[in-house]
Amino acid sequence: MTTVRLWSDAEAEADPAVKAVFDDIRATRKSDVVNNFWRGLANDPVQLKRTWENLKAIMVAPGALDPLTCELVYMAVSAANNCSYCIHSHTAAARAKGMTDAQYAHFLQIVGMAAHTNALVTTMQIPVDEAFQVES
Amino acid sequence: MTTVRLWSDAEAEADPAVKAVFDDIRATRKSDVVNNFWRGLANDPVQLKRTWENLKAIMVAPGALDPLTCELVYMAVSAANNCSYCIHSHTAAARAKGMTDAQYAHFLQIVGMAAHTNALVTTMQIPVDEAFQVES
Amino acid sequence: MTTVRLWSDAEAEADPAVKAVFDDIRATRKSDVVNNFWRGLANDPVQLKRTWENLKAIMVAPGALDPLTCELVYMAVSAANNCSYCIHSHTAAARAKGMTDAQYAHFLQIVGMAAHTNALVTTMQIPVDEAFQVES
Amino acid sequence: MTTVRLWSDAEAEADPAVKAVFDDIRATRKSDVVNNFWRGLANDPVQLKRTWENLKAIMVAPGALDPLTCELVYMAVSAANNCSYCIHSHTAAARAKGMTDAQYAHFLQIVGMAAHTNALVTTMQIPVDEAFQVES
Amino acid sequence: MTTVRLWSDAEAEADPAVKAVFDDIRATRKSDVVNNFWRGLANDPVQLKRTWENLKAIMVAPGALDPLTCELVYMAVSAANNCSYCIHSHTAAARAKGMTDAQYAHFLQIVGMAAHTNALVTTMQIPVDEAFQVES
Amino acid sequence: MTTVRLWSDAEAEADPAVKAVFDDIRATRKSDVVNNFWRGLANDPVQLKRTWENLKAIMVAPGALDPLTCELVYMAVSAANNCSYCIHSHTAAARAKGMTDAQYAHFLQIVGMAAHTNALVTTMQIPVDEAFQVES
Repeated sequence: MTTVRLWSDAEAEADPAVKAVFDDIRATRKSDVVNNFWRGLANDPVQLKRTWENLKAIMVAPGALDPLTCELVYMAVSAANNCSYCIHSHTAAARAKGMTDAQYAHFLQIVGMAAHTNALVTTMQIPVDEAFQVES
Repeated sequence: MTTVRLWSDAEAEADPAVKAVFDDIRATRKSDVVNNFWRGLANDPVQLKRTWENLKAIMVAPGALDPLTCELVYMAVSAANNCSYCIHSHTAAARAKGMTDAQYAHFLQIVGMAAHTNALVTTMQIPVDEAFQVES
Repeated sequence: MTTVRLWSDAEAEADPAVKAVFDDIRATRKSDVVNNFWRGLANDPVQLKRTWENLKAIMVAPGALDPLTCELVYMAVSAANNCSYCIHSHTAAARAKGMTDAQYAHFLQIVGMAAHTNALVTTMQIPVDEAFQVES
Repeated sequence: MTTVRLWSDAEAEADPAVKAVFDDIRATRKSDVVNNFWRGLANDPVQLKRTWENLKAIMVAPGALDPLTCELVYMAVSAANNCSYCIHSHTAAARAKGMTDAQYAHFLQIVGMAAHTNALVTTMQIPVDEAFQVES
Repeated sequence: MTTVRLWSDAEAEADPAVKAVFDDIRATRKSDVVNNFWRGLANDPVQLKRTWENLKAIMVAPGALDPLTCELVYMAVSAANNCSYCIHSHTAAARAKGMTDAQYAHFLQIVGMAAHTNALVTTMQIPVDEAFQVES
Repeated sequence: MTTVRLWSDAEAEADPAVKAVFDDIRATRKSDVVNNFWRGLANDPVQLKRTWENLKAIMVAPGALDPLTCELVYMAVSAANNCSYCIHSHTAAARAKGMTDAQYAHFLQIVGMAAHTNALVTTMQIPVDEAFQVES
């Protein structure tokens, strides 16, 4: 259950601002599926458009990181933030972009290891080494 | 300030179990620096050795993901877990492994976007689409 | 499924300490519903009473912040802490206290934006400006 | 210490894209101060502009929630996410927008109470009541 | 639904590396049950073995903390990290190791109180007292 | 730097409500030190008194869990919540209550292991086994 209404296709068709975004999602992804996240955001067409355009610019348009790496970073943040929906949707996206079982196994190892050392460092309150204190 | 003592090089030299790990860190990284994390872990030589061996197997040995991608995933988890030390050490490691300014800028965009959509999804309690419910 | 037993009305009636709190919840809220949180806490009548009295003092009694603002702050913390139950119960409470769809949409925008900039600031490890270092 | 360079005013003056955003920040806020967050984001002018425009639309332009309530929600998320910089900057902003000591005290009470009940609910794994499962 | 396949007993029997770990789990715990966590990890036999051996060394072998205290610490971390699965599995383990209802009630009080004061301290950004800055 | 004023002893002496709590803290702990947390809370004497009384009831009065175990649970929550102040104050308290170096090393092992498996379980979205779904 959600705290907002998930818009049906019929409702989206009847609202030009929402329809424009849903159409662009379908065209960009070459798929008929508009997933639930966008159907929830549709209650606020301004936020819907802004969020989709940012996502498209960051995750779909060519960038300095390749598409699979982008998904792995997204998955890592979503896992650490415990967002079940986002873990599922971005793991599915990573597989669609070619993530192999071996790559996913390696990813899981890193996520576990990072959480482990994060916890040890925080519990011991280790100070940052001077050697790391060099900005770009 | 830490909650544990950070071992000096002299102390490490005097304890064979700790010395063995510190020596391997230096040899593996081809660097004289042993950073503070390991100096804190040295209070428990078993945990020191286990943690270093896991890290070496996951982050140093060749794996399905390339070394820079491994660091980006580690950075993403550390950022979401708010581990200042780990953010600094793994951002430095990523730069050492060739991360460009453009790649780091893209990384930052993804981390921000992921945190943003994680929060929206969680606040609206969006249910996982059936389309995503396909395991490997 | 819970890790504790949820007390039924019959069980609560039979325990004077629990009954007193359940009665006060019903009288204070002018509603027959005692929600699951209190039924779980009933296993520890001292904690039940303490928690309810604190909640009543902070969220029900007149205070410096108006009732709807109180719920928005509660919702924001619950969303950031990923507490599904609390998100649902306090979003429902906010609506009962008059939250409009436009207010909820604005709330969602802020929660998303705050999570976004929190993540950017943390990842870049931005130091606090002196201008902000002024206490009350 | 940051993981990125914080742009000086001189550097910002020399880059038209950054200068345009810094100028707008100063004009919008009627203040000469451009705080460190924007100086770090300046390394990526596209992200700088996008983030500032979103923040201006959500936190500065008139909206369904009044300016002080917006800051309280922002503070609550930042506190739960443990973002020290954001806690300081938005607490300062809330005071600038008129937050009284009594309002801040009430805010603190709610943040503490919410974290407390979030933890109890999560530890007991309390299921959402049907009564709360009503969307807008 | 998971993002990985959960291995059946038949599949585990057919893979010597997985079978060896499953057999050791059953022998160590004197129980036929191999819970889902290990069935998911089985997709990566190296990670499966490493994780089980670490868990056995830390949570099963005699150590400086008694078995019930170990479970309470594990539960506390899992609750703060919002890991529903881990909360359930380690609360069940704690009961199996003798945790009484009174001990669990006390545990819940501490977890709630700690989350409460953590939030207050973070929101007020209280500096560490010099008196606490004494390492071992 | 804090977002609130930390009350000096002189100020506390001049406010009967604050003085009463500070006096009780000193008497209960048989120590002259009143740490910064209480000096920050003093801005809201009602919250100060309520928080201290809850802490005293849960962490000082005899309960089902012994004093050292109480501190270990508090430390575990504080570490997972990344509360630097609370990590320091409760690690110091645990040492004062007799925590040995060997116990602290075991504690650190558990905290790291729990964070590790929490992350793996969340990333794989492992469902709770029926065997664990038994409440008290």
